[in-house]
Amino acid sequence: MKRFPKDYTAGEISALIQGEFIGDPSHLIDNFADPSEANSSSLIFLEQEKFFSKAMASKAGLIICTQEFASRLGNSNLIIQEKPYFVIMMLISHILSEARSKLKYDVSPSSKLGDNTCLAPDVLVGNNVVIGANCQIGSHTIIGANCVIGDNCILGQDCYLYPNVNIYDDSVLEDRVILHAGVVIGSDGFGYLLQEGTQIKIPQVGNVIIHADVEIGSNTTIDRATIGSTIIGEGTKIDNLVQIGHNCIIGKHSILCSQVGLAGSTTIGDYVYLAGQVGVAGHLSIGDKAMVGAQSGVSHDLDPGGRYFGYPARDVKLMKRILAAEKNLPEMYKAYTKSKGDGHSHD
Amino acid sequence: MKRFPKDYTAGEISALIQGEFIGDPSHLIDNFADPSEANSSSLIFLEQEKFFSKAMASKAGLIICTQEFASRLGNSNLIIQEKPYFVIMMLISHILSEARSKLKYDVSPSSKLGDNTCLAPDVLVGNNVVIGANCQIGSHTIIGANCVIGDNCILGQDCYLYPNVNIYDDSVLEDRVILHAGVVIGSDGFGYLLQEGTQIKIPQVGNVIIHADVEIGSNTTIDRATIGSTIIGEGTKIDNLVQIGHNCIIGKHSILCSQVGLAGSTTIGDYVYLAGQVGVAGHLSIGDKAMVGAQSGVSHDLDPGGRYFGYPARDVKLMKRILAAEKNLPEMYKAYTKSKGDGHSHD
Amino acid sequence: MKRFPKDYTAGEISALIQGEFIGDPSHLIDNFADPSEANSSSLIFLEQEKFFSKAMASKAGLIICTQEFASRLGNSNLIIQEKPYFVIMMLISHILSEARSKLKYDVSPSSKLGDNTCLAPDVLVGNNVVIGANCQIGSHTIIGANCVIGDNCILGQDCYLYPNVNIYDDSVLEDRVILHAGVVIGSDGFGYLLQEGTQIKIPQVGNVIIHADVEIGSNTTIDRATIGSTIIGEGTKIDNLVQIGHNCIIGKHSILCSQVGLAGSTTIGDYVYLAGQVGVAGHLSIGDKAMVGAQSGVSHDLDPGGRYFGYPARDVKLMKRILAAEKNLPEMYKAYTKSKGDGHSHD
Repeated sequence: MKRFPKDYTAGEISALIQGEFIGDPSHLIDNFADPSEANSSSLIFLEQEKFFSKAMASKAGLIICTQEFASRLGNSNLIIQEKPYFVIMMLISHILSEARSKLKYDVSPSSKLGDNTCLAPDVLVGNNVVIGANCQIGSHTIIGANCVIGDNCILGQDCYLYPNVNIYDDSVLEDRVILHAGVVIGSDGFGYLLQEGTQIKIPQVGNVIIHADVEIGSNTTIDRATIGSTIIGEGTKIDNLVQIGHNCIIGKHSILCSQVGLAGSTTIGDYVYLAGQVGVAGHLSIGDKAMVGAQSGVSHDLDPGGRYFGYPARDVKLMKRILAAEKNLPEMYKAYTKSKGDGHSHD
Repeated sequence: MKRFPKDYTAGEISALIQGEFIGDPSHLIDNFADPSEANSSSLIFLEQEKFFSKAMASKAGLIICTQEFASRLGNSNLIIQEKPYFVIMMLISHILSEARSKLKYDVSPSSKLGDNTCLAPDVLVGNNVVIGANCQIGSHTIIGANCVIGDNCILGQDCYLYPNVNIYDDSVLEDRVILHAGVVIGSDGFGYLLQEGTQIKIPQVGNVIIHADVEIGSNTTIDRATIGSTIIGEGTKIDNLVQIGHNCIIGKHSILCSQVGLAGSTTIGDYVYLAGQVGVAGHLSIGDKAMVGAQSGVSHDLDPGGRYFGYPARDVKLMKRILAAEKNLPEMYKAYTKSKGDGHSHD
Repeated sequence: MKRFPKDYTAGEISALIQGEFIGDPSHLIDNFADPSEANSSSLIFLEQEKFFSKAMASKAGLIICTQEFASRLGNSNLIIQEKPYFVIMMLISHILSEARSKLKYDVSPSSKLGDNTCLAPDVLVGNNVVIGANCQIGSHTIIGANCVIGDNCILGQDCYLYPNVNIYDDSVLEDRVILHAGVVIGSDGFGYLLQEGTQIKIPQVGNVIIHADVEIGSNTTIDRATIGSTIIGEGTKIDNLVQIGHNCIIGKHSILCSQVGLAGSTTIGDYVYLAGQVGVAGHLSIGDKAMVGAQSGVSHDLDPGGRYFGYPARDVKLMKRILAAEKNLPEMYKAYTKSKGDGHSHD
């Protein structure tokens, strides 16, 4: 159950989402809930038949639903909408952003800022935050408690850094970048040269550039480039515990699910989808809109728009046929050994 | 070598574990050690023949062993027990919990507590801890240095948060929950809708509920529900670097090994065992007591009590037969191409 | 582009690396760059033909290149070297270590040190660092902001801990160990005994020992031993998000790439290479110089010098033949069912 920062009447909510309203417009709503936990002040939604009985049984004070459910929901307060789920998600985003706009921007006295670091007027710097020298932080950016930012970093406007985020020297974040707790941006790429029995560290002197509207999940790590920049393109979303190696370049609006790992110098196109735990070898190119199934191991370039799956990753149609045949492999092997035995008996 | 918080005589230790004692009961013991590092004040144990010579060669001052080794260990101080390993582990747990009971509970002056946050009388809040508003923290709970807890969180009694743990708003921890360093609880679920070429963020307004006696390993991430709750059942143990997606529901006393990843809305039963690096797709159901081998990729529901393995995960018996046959696949293919060639030559 | 801490003349750089110099020795250089971002104060390098046109088009003020490119690069300032990449990397390491040698060592007043903890004269302790009791920190060691170190820890000389590193009680780091942000050293091993329906925690009373010249990537976790020590050998390099289970023993100069997971009590030799996302089961032994391909699942001991790949990991030659045959499995299966059908029609 998510408490709203203030009460809304059912009529106000209906006006916000411009649906057809049925019921008592003065009924007060103060939270959004799952039907099972809803109370008389709850807003819920109903879009699929399989959730009808749950919605019907709930105590919710207001239901956003499609036309087909309207007559069946008895005398509940209803808002009729074609796409209840989408509408309610946009409504909640709106309500939460309203709350954020009332936030008190402030720099905690327990934070430390380096020389020549410049904060725009409305920035929130949490407790125990440490920011290095020569940084610029854009307005309405929020830096959560215990974050540490190195020297020479640039953060755009309206960024949101959750607590305990680590940003190394020279990193660049454009506007509206969201980094969840424990994210590490700009740690050294993993590069060594074996010389006379010792792994010699290759200095990592590039940086990380994160374009606008990127969101990065908890404890994900993005390494700085050896030379040049590791780049995350505009609008790309990266889940928790993902590893992005040095010098990777990721395009726009791509989706990298949890625990994906990219080795160094790999290029990912726009609108690419990598499912959970996918691994991609280094120096590869994944074309725009390619989709790769969970746990796949990508060891060669992938075509734009292709669908891939498997270890190693293959065209999804071929892979499905391989897996279907594989189930019969024990039987085939038995037949094969039998025929070989038969063959031998002829000798 | 683990130093005990105080000295024990061999006789006191024998009394604590109620075994048969042989030797000098006044001998002082102040640590528990591996046989190879033991000194005359060390306690060690011996349960398996293969470790006999190591134990025999050690300088340990006290050995807990089974009856069969008693006569062979010369004139060492001995305690005879049927299950030395189990007994010694319980002894050490007892000694460590005694030490913890003497801990000085205190709230560091460098910590910050939000409005209406309420601590029970005996709580330890470490340096630089930041706790939001409207939280409740139960007695004898320990919050390590640099932890950050959001608003509206409830922590039970006897919880132990190691340093640098991050807990987002609205999270609930019941009693005796242990969170290791770098754990993130309640970060946003990974959900977007592609609208007109842009990934629109679905607001994540649920929470995380962790039931009693759960332990969670370092840098593991557990996402909040989109709506409702992500739930970890009583007594379940989760290893390091595990990812639990939004709206997952995990049962009681299950074991999730390191680097396991669960996509969203998956349900795991009681006493389930997921080995290291297992991936489970979203919206699945894993039955009670199911066991899944390391690195398996689970893409469909699993039966209670079943044993599974592979990518994709299959019944372990079938999978073993597939793997056995697979080794012969190159030979089978050679025979197949030969027979095809023979076939063609007849055309 | 990496700014140097001071300006160098082209002649000074040439003297440092002892190459043949062509051009204006007084030209000032203040950064190292990728050719595409270079300006007239940039140093770049050229070693491979495929990067020639990029280097030719760049505005770099100084190019380190091999003899073959010298005449083709027009009137640029050049240093001729046999191995430009290696030479430039060593040069940058030298320049960066010079900068570090000028660092002002200092203990932040916002840090907290426990009783009997002893810092060598030149140690840098960052903001909000918390160090427990009875620790020893060697000279020229740098402890980044918000790190937390437990009791009874020993850190050698010239270690570098990036921010937000967590080190549990009793850990030992030798000289020149580098830990990147979010690393956790010494968290409890994952061990439970199921007793009467409940997972009983096995106390984890060993420690972690990290030998000299080890580097460990962001958010990697290394568990303490149950008894004894988890050991990382001299010069071994571990990437981001790696999991090392309790009681593992890793040899010298090995390479563990990102997201590798080792279950408990596994022994890894010297000069071993584990590619990204490799999983290794518990209680195994991986021989010296063994190499394991990405995402492999190692379920048995591996021979020294062997090359392995696959799930489960097999000799790389066998695995390549299996994968080549596997592509034809659908066709083989079709032929098999047809022949079976033919067979049946004879009945």
